[in-house]
Amino acid sequence: MDASKRSYAPINFAQKLAQFYDQWQPRVIAELNEYQFKIVRIEGDFIWHDHPETDEAFIVLEGSLRIDFRDGSVTLGPGEMYVVPKGVEHKPYAAGEVKMLLIEPRGTLNTGHAGGERTARNDIWI
Amino acid sequence: MDASKRSYAPINFAQKLAQFYDQWQPRVIAELNEYQFKIVRIEGDFIWHDHPETDEAFIVLEGSLRIDFRDGSVTLGPGEMYVVPKGVEHKPYAAGEVKMLLIEPRGTLNTGHAGGERTARNDIWI
Repeated sequence: MDASKRSYAPINFAQKLAQFYDQWQPRVIAELNEYQFKIVRIEGDFIWHDHPETDEAFIVLEGSLRIDFRDGSVTLGPGEMYVVPKGVEHKPYAAGEVKMLLIEPRGTLNTGHAGGERTARNDIWI
Repeated sequence: MDASKRSYAPINFAQKLAQFYDQWQPRVIAELNEYQFKIVRIEGDFIWHDHPETDEAFIVLEGSLRIDFRDGSVTLGPGEMYVVPKGVEHKPYAAGEVKMLLIEPRGTLNTGHAGGERTARNDIWI
C-alpha cells in the first residue's frame, strides 16, 4: 500500500467500553444511514416497554442477557443476537453485568413508549 | 419463570457459520425493519464497488479484514466494526478466511453498483 495513503480507524468495542463504566446509558459508536449502533453496560432489571415504531436488535458482547416477553423469554450470550419486533413488550434482565450492542433508528429511546425515570439520555456519542 | 412460557431461540453466530463453508455468499440471519443482518465467509480479494444508495456496516467475528479505499484502508479484527459510507468505493480483502456480519438494507447486492460475475445470490436465509 502507498505510504501516502490514510489508515482509517476501526471501531473497537472493547476500547469503546473502556471509556465508561456507568450502566443503562447507551453511547452511540456508529451510524448506518438513519440507524445507530449503541454500546451499553446493563445489570439488573429494566422496565417493561415497547417500541411501537421499530424493531430493536441486541448483540451481546459479554455476559448473559435475558429478555423477558409477556409470553416467554430469550437468553443471549456472547456471539448471540436477537431482534425484538416493533410493538412487542419486553424487559431486559442481567443477573451480572452485560456489555452489548443495540442497533435501532436514531431517536429511539431506551424506554420506548413507556418513558419515566429510567429513560436515558439519547444520542450520546463516544 | 412460569414453566408454560416459551423459550425463544437466540441467533448464534457460530452455529450459523457451522451451516455453510462456501465463501463470498452472504446468508441472511435476521431482519431489523427493512435492514438485514448477513453472515459471510470471505477470503482473498474482492472487486472495487460502491453502494450509491446506502451505507454498509461490517462487523468482524474472526480473522483480519482489510477494506481498501481509493485513498487508504481500514483493517478490522474480531470485535471491531466499520461503516462504509454510501457512494464510497471500497474493496474488501482477507489474507486468511474472515467470518463477518454485514448490516445493510434488504436488497443490497454484494457488488453494489459494479455487478458482474462476483455478484452473489441475494436474500438467502439460514
